[in-house]
Amino acid sequence: MYLNDLVSRIEPLDGQSMEAANNRQNSLTKPQGSLGRLEKLSIQVAGITRKAVPHLQDKVALVMAGDHGVVSEGVSAYPQEVTPQMVYNFLRGGAAINVLARHVGARVVVVDMGVASDLEVLPGLVVKKIAYGTGNIARGPAMTREQALQSLIAGAQVVDSLKEGGLDILATGDMGIGNTTPSAAIAAVYTGRPVEEIAGRGTGVDDTGLQRKVSAIQKALQVNQPNPKDGVDVLAKVGGFEIGGLAGAILAAAASHCPIVIDGFISTAAAMIAVSVAPIARDYLIAAHTSQERGHHLMMNWLELEPLLDLQMRLGEGTGAALAMSLVEASCKVLSEMSTFGEAGVSEKDAA
Amino acid sequence: MYLNDLVSRIEPLDGQSMEAANNRQNSLTKPQGSLGRLEKLSIQVAGITRKAVPHLQDKVALVMAGDHGVVSEGVSAYPQEVTPQMVYNFLRGGAAINVLARHVGARVVVVDMGVASDLEVLPGLVVKKIAYGTGNIARGPAMTREQALQSLIAGAQVVDSLKEGGLDILATGDMGIGNTTPSAAIAAVYTGRPVEEIAGRGTGVDDTGLQRKVSAIQKALQVNQPNPKDGVDVLAKVGGFEIGGLAGAILAAAASHCPIVIDGFISTAAAMIAVSVAPIARDYLIAAHTSQERGHHLMMNWLELEPLLDLQMRLGEGTGAALAMSLVEASCKVLSEMSTFGEAGVSEKDAA
Repeated sequence: MYLNDLVSRIEPLDGQSMEAANNRQNSLTKPQGSLGRLEKLSIQVAGITRKAVPHLQDKVALVMAGDHGVVSEGVSAYPQEVTPQMVYNFLRGGAAINVLARHVGARVVVVDMGVASDLEVLPGLVVKKIAYGTGNIARGPAMTREQALQSLIAGAQVVDSLKEGGLDILATGDMGIGNTTPSAAIAAVYTGRPVEEIAGRGTGVDDTGLQRKVSAIQKALQVNQPNPKDGVDVLAKVGGFEIGGLAGAILAAAASHCPIVIDGFISTAAAMIAVSVAPIARDYLIAAHTSQERGHHLMMNWLELEPLLDLQMRLGEGTGAALAMSLVEASCKVLSEMSTFGEAGVSEKDAA
Repeated sequence: MYLNDLVSRIEPLDGQSMEAANNRQNSLTKPQGSLGRLEKLSIQVAGITRKAVPHLQDKVALVMAGDHGVVSEGVSAYPQEVTPQMVYNFLRGGAAINVLARHVGARVVVVDMGVASDLEVLPGLVVKKIAYGTGNIARGPAMTREQALQSLIAGAQVVDSLKEGGLDILATGDMGIGNTTPSAAIAAVYTGRPVEEIAGRGTGVDDTGLQRKVSAIQKALQVNQPNPKDGVDVLAKVGGFEIGGLAGAILAAAASHCPIVIDGFISTAAAMIAVSVAPIARDYLIAAHTSQERGHHLMMNWLELEPLLDLQMRLGEGTGAALAMSLVEASCKVLSEMSTFGEAGVSEKDAA
């Protein structure tokens, strides 16, 4: 699989299905527009899936894990060993994403894109390890251009293989100690905003830690000079393996007419890479929630997306996306299951 | 049952359970506070239910229906016959609340509190009809004080009977053509804000209809002089039977240590009546969403509640509350199902 082939498979949304969905929404027993964003979501999903009345049965929360050389700059509140520990927690079902995915009826798929240690081969773990963590972006590139391409393709392959078990809607999630740092770097490249407006406390660094983080990102941009016109370059210079994997997953899902619910800060950085590589992919994205991480709203503005939820969350793992995925499913159920005025024998609005 | 007895049964939240829930949240495998409002919700529910680890199994969407004499002032975009038509739609499972309640695993209970016509006795309909619609509040009181008390008690009785089938969390909903008008009147009484800042387009009146509505509410306040210090008086003068039923249901649920998710404009007006009668009841409330109806945020401010969702909805029926109920359930699953750092063998935050 080559990146250009993947990108060329991404088509615009299907206007005919969207119009049919819109007409049906207007015939259902409620004042037109009264379900607000649920109505709009169902129409977007109709355009994505090319079905006037889409059904979202098989839901997947895809959690990609990777480590980051930049942790040696002291940018995270947790030690790097937490990345594999949390991967095991995902595989045993004890993490927040497991609880929330179960709640919304989604299965969790965990991918090792680049954890810095060898993981036990446990059931449910997909191994696509590109390398044992990225390079320290404050001193040089995160990875080679070849590795960036590999991570995008690996992410796309994961999505393609998910289709065998059923995939109607994808939620993206991440795990990787230190990964708000490359994500903030990516956001700074695309938005052009100062690093101080974007970098936040991640898992909870103190003021000194935040200063180290801002400084590490500034160095990363200075040392690497990532080219915002070239998404693969941005990924290679200041990205991460799980970020590349998620970007590739987004591209493959879009190419497969599958709606993608992006989670918070890291998933949004991956979405920026994906949209930079394939601008049409943006229309396949649904923003789950506003992350508490500082610059997330600037990233949303750049993507021109409006998050569905604001629950003051900042955990990642796909936790916000799992909750939002349930709203998207609900929007499609409204479209398919509600009675029309005619079917229910309900009088329509008085002529004005 | 007397109102005073009901009110006296409402106790403050249980601080001990809240502290235990808070401690457990802080031991779970995530940075402390990173699940934001989900964490706070679980702690509130612990205080409400008096359980350190509450389980919300049985979920009910309670939809109360009533008609409003004020429709003769031309305040609604739909004819009054839609109230019974929609009640039948609820009973057949074809309305938005049915779809969304099914989606979140809640049962729908429909109550005739005061529909203006006799309804067929269909399975699932609870009949507590106080009268065939209210009086026209622009000309006189909605109901007598006795009827206001009756509607509160009837609503409380419905909740008490729901407990037999299981009731762990209650979502409130409404149906009643014209009922944004009395709800806006109630909001104006409590908030003291001008009617123009509160009354909105309801199901979709045009500018002229909105003017008639504002004028009808102004007349209602002028003619009836409801006393904001007396919730029963406000309900009697400018309320509605479904509003009274919902207020009574809120009081009974609070007295039973049951969390209450209030829906949009009408349910919030009912909550204002309930809180005016029993201020402690406020702590049992969870605001589902910001309604698109104009003055809803002013009502939220008065209640000092922060809605969970903003999906630009304005349908009522309990649709927003059904969606939010699922978030509350999720918050409790996080508390009960996530592994602790110790259980999962995950390293905790570095000492600063």
